[in-house]
Amino acid sequence: MAPPTRGAAGPDARASGLALFTDRYELAMLQGYHETGHDPLATFDLYFRSLPTDRGYVVAAGLEQALDYVLTLSFDDEELAFLDSLGFSESFLEFLAAFEFTGEIRAVPEGTVVFPDEPLVEVTAPISQAQLFETLLLNQVGYQSLVATKAARMRDTVDRLGDGQALVDFGSRRAHGTDAGLKAVRAAYIGGFDATSNVEAGWRFDVPTAGTMAHSWVQSFPTEREAFEAFLDVYGEDSVLLVDTYDTVGGARTAASVAAERELDIEGVRLDSGDLVGLSKTVSEIVDCGIFVSSGMDEYSIESFLNGGGVATGFGPGTALVTSEDAPTLNMVYKLVAVEQDGDLVPSMKLSPGKATYPWQKSVRRVERDGRFHRDVLALRDEAGRGDEQLRVVVEDGEWVGESPSLATCRERTLGQLTRLPARFRALRRPASYQVRPSDGLQEMTGALREELERQYLRDE
Amino acid sequence: MAPPTRGAAGPDARASGLALFTDRYELAMLQGYHETGHDPLATFDLYFRSLPTDRGYVVAAGLEQALDYVLTLSFDDEELAFLDSLGFSESFLEFLAAFEFTGEIRAVPEGTVVFPDEPLVEVTAPISQAQLFETLLLNQVGYQSLVATKAARMRDTVDRLGDGQALVDFGSRRAHGTDAGLKAVRAAYIGGFDATSNVEAGWRFDVPTAGTMAHSWVQSFPTEREAFEAFLDVYGEDSVLLVDTYDTVGGARTAASVAAERELDIEGVRLDSGDLVGLSKTVSEIVDCGIFVSSGMDEYSIESFLNGGGVATGFGPGTALVTSEDAPTLNMVYKLVAVEQDGDLVPSMKLSPGKATYPWQKSVRRVERDGRFHRDVLALRDEAGRGDEQLRVVVEDGEWVGESPSLATCRERTLGQLTRLPARFRALRRPASYQVRPSDGLQEMTGALREELERQYLRDE
Repeated sequence: MAPPTRGAAGPDARASGLALFTDRYELAMLQGYHETGHDPLATFDLYFRSLPTDRGYVVAAGLEQALDYVLTLSFDDEELAFLDSLGFSESFLEFLAAFEFTGEIRAVPEGTVVFPDEPLVEVTAPISQAQLFETLLLNQVGYQSLVATKAARMRDTVDRLGDGQALVDFGSRRAHGTDAGLKAVRAAYIGGFDATSNVEAGWRFDVPTAGTMAHSWVQSFPTEREAFEAFLDVYGEDSVLLVDTYDTVGGARTAASVAAERELDIEGVRLDSGDLVGLSKTVSEIVDCGIFVSSGMDEYSIESFLNGGGVATGFGPGTALVTSEDAPTLNMVYKLVAVEQDGDLVPSMKLSPGKATYPWQKSVRRVERDGRFHRDVLALRDEAGRGDEQLRVVVEDGEWVGESPSLATCRERTLGQLTRLPARFRALRRPASYQVRPSDGLQEMTGALREELERQYLRDE
Repeated sequence: MAPPTRGAAGPDARASGLALFTDRYELAMLQGYHETGHDPLATFDLYFRSLPTDRGYVVAAGLEQALDYVLTLSFDDEELAFLDSLGFSESFLEFLAAFEFTGEIRAVPEGTVVFPDEPLVEVTAPISQAQLFETLLLNQVGYQSLVATKAARMRDTVDRLGDGQALVDFGSRRAHGTDAGLKAVRAAYIGGFDATSNVEAGWRFDVPTAGTMAHSWVQSFPTEREAFEAFLDVYGEDSVLLVDTYDTVGGARTAASVAAERELDIEGVRLDSGDLVGLSKTVSEIVDCGIFVSSGMDEYSIESFLNGGGVATGFGPGTALVTSEDAPTLNMVYKLVAVEQDGDLVPSMKLSPGKATYPWQKSVRRVERDGRFHRDVLALRDEAGRGDEQLRVVVEDGEWVGESPSLATCRERTLGQLTRLPARFRALRRPASYQVRPSDGLQEMTGALREELERQYLRDE
C-alpha cells in the first residue's frame, strides 16, 4: 500500500484552508502593497536567532511541507468571501484569486545540521508574494526542526552508550494537536528514530509502525495470565506483553511462563513504570525476549538508564520528543534582508535592540578540518571564500528545480552530518558553541548599513 | 460571513484521515477483542495526574472537537486498505468498516476549572469502541486545556494589575503545527483572550481577528516616514504603526507627526523590542493613541510590565501562549476504571508505581463556601454527598444529548469560575494546592481493590 500522494489528504491539503492560515497583518500588508502600487522585489531569510538551552545544533526539517505550500497556495471562493466580510477590497481579492508564486527559493537540504543566523530558507519574490508565507513557513519548519533535533539527541545518546536500541515514537497523544502528532513522526524519523505508533503518520510518510498493548488490555481480563494468553492467541510470536500493570517482576514471570507453555519466542515485554534500571535487569534474567522501555524517555533518561546498566532492546519516547519538552520553542524568524529600490535590489536590516538582522542574500559555508565540521562562515551570496555552500536553489521562476529526496535520504544526511560534528557540540548539557563567523564582506556591509541607518534615524538621541 | 460548519473543512474533518490518527496498539487491541470475542463493557476516565509546575488549576478545553470525533469517526476504503497492508484481518476490517459509537459519555462543561484526578471526560462503551479514542481524545483535550490555562493566567494578571488591556494571540507562527495554531485560538479565547491574528481560526471559530504591520513593511520603503504614510493611505484611522524598526522613540515621533499632519486619530502604535516599560512610558508622552506591546509577552512579563508602570492598551502574546512554554505538557491519561465481568460492570485499577488509578465511575463535586470554591470531592458515581456535580451526561446510546454552548458561553464560564477560585490557587508562582478529596466510598473501594490485587499479584515478593 503506497502512502497517499504528498499532501493529498492531509492537514497540508487545501481542504484544511491553509491559505488563510496566516496572520491578519500579512494580508493587511499585502493589500497595502497592492493598493499603493508599491510592490518591490524582496528577499526574506528564514533562520533562528539563537540555540535553545542545552542545544548545540539544530536539524533543519519540515522544508518539504513548507515549500509545497508556497508552490500550491491558492485562495478559494469561500476564503475570498470571508476576506470580503472582513473588509478587504474587491480589487485585492481579485489579486488573491489569481495568486501564484513566481519567485526564487534557496534552501538547505532537509536534514542538514544548522546553527544560529544561518538561513534555512531564503525567498526572493515581489514582496506581495514573499510576505504572505511568513506564518506557515515558521510554523512548519520551526516545529519539525525542534523535533528532529530532539530525536537526533536521543539517537546520538543510544549510539554513544547503547547497543543499537530501537527508538519508537509514542508521542501522538501528547503532541500539540493532530498536525504536530503527524509531523513529529516525520521529523523524528529524520532525526534517527526507527518507527512510530501513529498509524496515519506511518501511512502518510511511509514510516514503519509499531505497537504493543495498553494496561486496559490486561485489566479487561479477569487475570493478567488470561490477558497474556488471549494476546498470544491473536499475535503469537509478534507479541510484546506489557508487564507492569500489577507488579513488573511478577508480570515478567507470567509472560515468560505463558510463552514457554506455548513454546513461543515472543518479541518482547514492555516496562512502563517504577525503577526502570533495576527492573529491567531483573526482568532480563526472567525473560528471553526483547525488553521495551517506555516511561518518560528522553535523551537524559536514556543516558541515565544506559549509564546505570539498564537492559533494553528498545525505547518508546513520547511526550518529551513531540513537545521538545525542555526546549518547546525555537526563536525562528522570517526577516526582510534585501529589497528593490529604484530598480535595484539593495541590502536591508532593522536595528531593533536584541533583534537586529544581517542584511542581504547569504551564503552558508561549512569549513571542514580532518573530515569534521570546523566552523561555518555566513557570507554574502556569491562572495568568494572557503567551505561548502549549504544553500541550493530549489525554486526558480516559481517552478521546483531542486531534488526530492526520500525521507530515508534526509535521515542519512542528518546521521552522517552528526558523525562529523565534534562531540563537544553534541553534548546533552551546556554544549560548546559552534562558530558561525560572519565573513568580511557581510561584516562590512552590516557595519556600513547600520551606520547609515543610525545616521538617518538616531540623530536626535 | 458565517464560520464554516463545525469541523466541515478542518483538520478534524474526515479528509484529514483522523480515523487512523491513533496508536497502532489501539487497533491491535481492538482486533484482539474482536478476534477473541472478548468485548466487555468498559469505562475509561480522561484526567490528568498532576498539575504542571506553577499551575494551581487547569481550564478544561477541546471537548467539543474531541466528542465530535467520537461521534463521527468512520474508516474509509483507503484507510481500510492501508490496514489490510499492515496485516489486519479481513473480519476485523469488516468490523471497522461498520464502526459506530453506541455508548455513554459524561463530561464537564467546556471551560470548567478542573484539578488532578478529576475526569474531564468519561466514556462507557464496549471496550472495542471505547479503547479506540484514547489517542485523539488526549491529543485534543490535553493541548487545548494547556493553552486555555495559560491564557487564563494572562487574563487574570491583566484583571489584577491592569486596566482592561486587550489580549490578542499572535502565536500561529510558533505553534507546533497548523492544528495547534488553530486550536490555540479557540482555547485562548475560552481562557479570556479577545482576538487572534490567525485569519483561518478567526473564521472557523468566529473569534475576532486583528493585525498591525511587520518590520518588513517599514523596511520595504525608502524611509520609515514613507512607510507610515503609505499605511495611513490605505488604512487611515484603523492603522497600528510598528515603531521599533530603527529606533522606538524616533519611530513614535514619526508616527505622531504623520498622524497629526493628516489629522487622523490612529488606533495605535506597536512596540516589539527593547526596554518595554521605559519605552512605553516615553512613547505614551509622544503619541495620543493606543500602545500595543508584543515582545515575549506571557503572564510573567505582563506582571512585570504592569508592576513596573508600563503603559499599554493591549498585549500580543504568542510563543509562550501557544506552546504553554513553561509547561508544555499536561500529564493527561485515559484509563480503564470499570469493566464488565460475568455480566456486571466491576471496578478496575492498576497498581503501577506512581501511576496507580482510582477505580469506578466518578462524581466530581465542587463544594463552595461563601460563594467561593472551597474544595472538590472525588466520589463514586451516585454516591451521596455535598457539592455540585460537575460531570454531565452528554452522549447516550451514541447520540448527543448535551448542550452545545457557544465559545462565548464557555469563556464566560471560565472567567466566572476563576473569580470564585480564591487568589492563592491562582498565584503565578507556587500556587496553593486546591483540595480534591477522595470520598469515603472511593477510598474504601480503592483500598479493598488494591488489597485484593496485591493478594493476587504480589504473593511472591
